Formats: sequence, structure tokens, C-alpha cells
Amino acid sequence: MSCWYKDYDALGGIVISSRIRLARNLSNMPFPRRMDAQMLRTLKERVKVAVDKMQDKVMLKFIEMNDIPENEIKAMVERHVISPDFANSCRDRAIALSNDENISIMIGEEDHIRIQVISAGNSLDKAYEIADMIDVALNESLGFAFDSKLGYLTECPTNIGTGLRASLMLHLPVCESRGEINMISDAASKIGLTVRGMYGEGSKASASFYQISNQITLGISEKNAIENLKVIAQQIVEREKSARADIDKLNLMDTVFRSLGALKYARIMSSDEFTKHISMIKLGVDEGIIENNNIKPVELLISAQPYMLMKNHIAITPLERDEARATMIRGLL
Amino acid sequence: MSCWYKDYDALGGIVISSRIRLARNLSNMPFPRRMDAQMLRTLKERVKVAVDKMQDKVMLKFIEMNDIPENEIKAMVERHVISPDFANSCRDRAIALSNDENISIMIGEEDHIRIQVISAGNSLDKAYEIADMIDVALNESLGFAFDSKLGYLTECPTNIGTGLRASLMLHLPVCESRGEINMISDAASKIGLTVRGMYGEGSKASASFYQISNQITLGISEKNAIENLKVIAQQIVEREKSARADIDKLNLMDTVFRSLGALKYARIMSSDEFTKHISMIKLGVDEGIIENNNIKPVELLISAQPYMLMKNHIAITPLERDEARATMIRGLL
Repeated sequence: MSCWYKDYDALGGIVISSRIRLARNLSNMPFPRRMDAQMLRTLKERVKVAVDKMQDKVMLKFIEMNDIPENEIKAMVERHVISPDFANSCRDRAIALSNDENISIMIGEEDHIRIQVISAGNSLDKAYEIADMIDVALNESLGFAFDSKLGYLTECPTNIGTGLRASLMLHLPVCESRGEINMISDAASKIGLTVRGMYGEGSKASASFYQISNQITLGISEKNAIENLKVIAQQIVEREKSARADIDKLNLMDTVFRSLGALKYARIMSSDEFTKHISMIKLGVDEGIIENNNIKPVELLISAQPYMLMKNHIAITPLERDEARATMIRGLL
Repeated sequence: MSCWYKDYDALGGIVISSRIRLARNLSNMPFPRRMDAQMLRTLKERVKVAVDKMQDKVMLKFIEMNDIPENEIKAMVERHVISPDFANSCRDRAIALSNDENISIMIGEEDHIRIQVISAGNSLDKAYEIADMIDVALNESLGFAFDSKLGYLTECPTNIGTGLRASLMLHLPVCESRGEINMISDAASKIGLTVRGMYGEGSKASASFYQISNQITLGISEKNAIENLKVIAQQIVEREKSARADIDKLNLMDTVFRSLGALKYARIMSSDEFTKHISMIKLGVDEGIIENNNIKPVELLISAQPYMLMKNHIAITPLERDEARATMIRGLL
């Protein structure tokens, strides 16, 4: 198993990735926001011991965030390894991370523990299975704060209950071009789901990549919440599919191949233009228009994010970054 | 010697082609506009005999325009073999044409005879030498209307004297992008030269291809008119060259390669978009940015004109033509 965005391109399809996040807190300890330095150290130590104890089930590396350079932290957000919120206030915090980066436990985010499992394609059940296994194992060592009536206790009331956020990342270029996203988003919100941009709360949708996730955590089981999400996501996927069937093939080919031409030939490329083209390439691959198996749109999408790019290329100014992006893309295509 | 636009790409440079046109009329015959059918037949017969007589100097095929299909006539305009005016009123007219199409004699255009010689690159002297040789040979057989004070007599007073129009086709993408063409055109007109679009009078400039030609035919020798044109054209060429030296190389590369990408990958391409890209490709070839010797921008430019395209591709609707254009370009690149 390699990281989700490398696994994804072999699968293809409208559902890019599945993510499970569980918010958990230890009993008898204040929430991170109210912890002093000593308490935070204690929290990290206790979690580290618990993580080490479950090594036979899942191997995670314990990493102090203070050891990670600023730009790499931002690149971790781009790879969806940590949340933007955690990146903004991760001083003295820590994470436990699997080698493939698909499993991460943020320690001292909003809650004591945020277990995240991300996997390629339409695979919420698989992601949940892993998250649940970790949840059970850590609970044995740490004892999570749990109220028999409310469920798991969390700092923010919107997470109390299951502490679960399940989400699917969907690629909806044709629904988007038809201006249907707001309607889909409104309909989803009426049944307790949220449609957001690629990087979660407050993020702008990046070139037709959207996350849909559950909002309700109280009075519903984890499995039921996941089932609800799957059913609605499937309806959105069907809507996108039928919209795709209506497109004029010649126009679609023209648009897709022009994007491929731009990616293969441009010398300067902004992040916005890039994501727009990648979305078209992905549509082309999924619709069988581009047959080259070496084109991996989602891996490219993640690899060409600004901080991911700076990791591998010396690029100081925005223009240098736009040039490095174009160079990298040409190298990969 | 193959046709000028096939010869040109091996040369490259800002001067695409050189053209000489001589307007001549036979004595004792009314101008074509006032000829009846019998007179026109007589004119054609006399010219045919004269053309046949100079076969040892230049081999021309005598062609009745009534034998040429409508679309091929329009394609001949696109190849610069005949003038748009001649194409519009060529019923019962004829031409004498060399195999490579660089030499043509239109019979019964505005004047009895229009000798045209076109050659690749900056080669007005060579074109004039051939035109002059034909002029002398035909004059021997036909006896052109000549007034010792005015010179050659023509229907339109603007041609009286030398009956010469010399023109150079220039590629001025950077002057154009800087908005300098009007200024160049105004300056040229003050010294008796005209700057026009690619297809002569009234035609819109096609993507930075411009014709500059002499206007004055009276009180000046043919050679002097040609020298004047060459001097001014050289100044314009120098201006374009120095403007090119000022461009940011990375931006230029980006623009040039994006055009190449669009040409290589588009599935639908309008004539306007195509000429814009070809202009950039030509700039890229001339500036050493594109090194592939197989890319022949001017040959492509001519070959992808609408009627040239219809000759080789079944394309009825404008969309089918735009699709055929894109297909042809991909095939050639």
C-alpha cells in the first residue's frame, strides 16, 4: 500500500479518496486549548506509549512537529496528512504517522487525538475498519472520555457523539461546468452533509474537486453515518455520470487535449491554471479519451501544489514557482 | 524550384516572400471591362500564342478559368496564385501558370495582362528579373500600349507608368503586439508605400503577416521603385528585430510552446486561432526556440486556409472544417 494519491490513479473514477477522522479525548485531562506545556508533554508521552503498544497492528512513526520545517508542514497539508488548523498551531504538538502517510494521528489538535485514515477511491468501509481498529487499540491503553448518553466527548459540540467525520473527495467537472454545485451543496446540507473544497472547511473548491462529509455525530451510529454519506455520494456520482454522457464528444476531446497540450508545452503555469487543466486531464482519462496509462492526474495534482513543489525545486518567487511547476509537469508527462 | 511557400520555410526570417506584378495592355484593344465575348476570345488567343512562343525561356500552362471548380479558384487565391479581384470575375478569363505556381499571368483581369512572379524570402531582384524577362518576351509578340511620356498605359491611373507593384510579405508579430503597425503604416504611406494584410487590398492582416508594397508608378523607374521598397522594408525588419531582442525569453518560450501545444493537441481549430498560433510558431522557429526542422509554419499557414483545406478534406460545415484543420495540423506536426 503506497500513499492514497499514488494508489488512486490506477483506480480512476469520480470518487478520488475516502477519509475517516475520529476525534477522541482522554478522560481527566483538559482540552488542548487549555493545556499548559507540562500537560501537553504528558499527553504526548501517554499517546506515544499507546501507539508503541499497538505496533503489531499498525506501525506508526512518532514525530515532534517542532522537528519539521515550516514549508514541509505546509506540504503535509497539501498531501492531506494533517489539517490546515493543525498546521497553523502545531508548535510543541506531535503526530504519529504511517510510512505511506495514509494513517495519521494528530496529537493536541482541537481534541487530544484525531485519528485520520485516508484511502484511494471509494473505500470508506476499508478506511473505517482501520480507524476503528486504532480507536479500539488506543482506547484500551488511554481510556477515552465517553458518556453513556452523549457518546465520545469532544471540545466542539458539533463532534460530540461519534466524533466521526467521514468524507469522500469527488471529481465533478461536468456538474460544476453546468453550475449545479450550489444546488448539490444545498440539497446535501438539508440532510446533514456538507460539500466543501478540496482542503476542507473554508477552502475554495480546486478545479472541480469537492469533499462531501457528514455533519451529524449525535444520535447516529458511526456505521449509519457512513452509510448515509455513501448513499448520497453515489447519487451525486450518478448525476455527474449522466451529465458526462450528455457532452458533445468532439468538444470534450478538444478541451481535454488542449489541456494536455498546455501541460506538455507551457513554460510558466500558475497553480489555478494547472488544477483546471488537471481536472480536464482526469476527465479525459476517466472517459477513455486519453489512453496513456502513464498520466497520473491526481498524483500530479498533489505533487504540483505550491509547497510540494518547493520541496523538490528551488523556487523563491511566485514566477519561479510557476516555472518550476511547468518544468516538473513536462518532466512527468 | 518548388512553390514559394514550400521554399520559404528552409530560409526562415522576417521576409516571407517577394512579389512582382506588372500590369500590361495590348495596343488597339479596349480594356477588359469594355470587351465583348469575341474580343476576350481574341485576347486570350493572342496571349496564348505569345506564351507558347517563349516556351524555351519559361514554361507556362495555359488554363481556362471556366475549367477550374469554384473552390479551387478560391484555393488559388489562398496560395496567392491569382488576385481576389480576378477570382471574383474570372468567368471566360484565363491564366498562364508555371508548374511551381510561382509565375502566373492573369489574362483579362483589370488589365489585359497581369504578370506575377512570387518567390520565397527577401528576393525582389530575382522575382523582378523573371518578370522583366517575361515582359520583354511578351512585348515582342504582343506590343504593349506604351506612351513615351507616361510609360505603360493601364486601366486604372494609379498603375500608369511602370505598371509595377512590388511587394514584400513581412512577419511582424512583436511590432504588432506593441501596437506599432499603424505607426509603421502611416510612415510608409508618406513615402508612397502601403502596408496591407496578407491578401492584399482590403484584407485584414492575418496574425501579424503584412504586405508592404509600392504605390507610385509614375515618374520613377521600375528598379528605383524596387530599391525604395527594399530600403524601407529593411528598416521595418530591423525594427522588428530590435523589438524581438527586448522580449523576456521565458515569457516568449511559454507563449511559443503553448501555441505548439494547442496546434498539436486541439481537435477543433478556427482559422483565426490557427493563424495566431502559426505566427507564434514561426516566431519561435526564427528565434531558435523551436528547433524541430520538420515544422514548416508558412507551408502550414497556406495549407490550412479554408479552401486549401476543403481540397484535401471532406468538410462541409464550418465546424467540420475546424475539425479537419485540427486533424491536418496534428498530422503534419
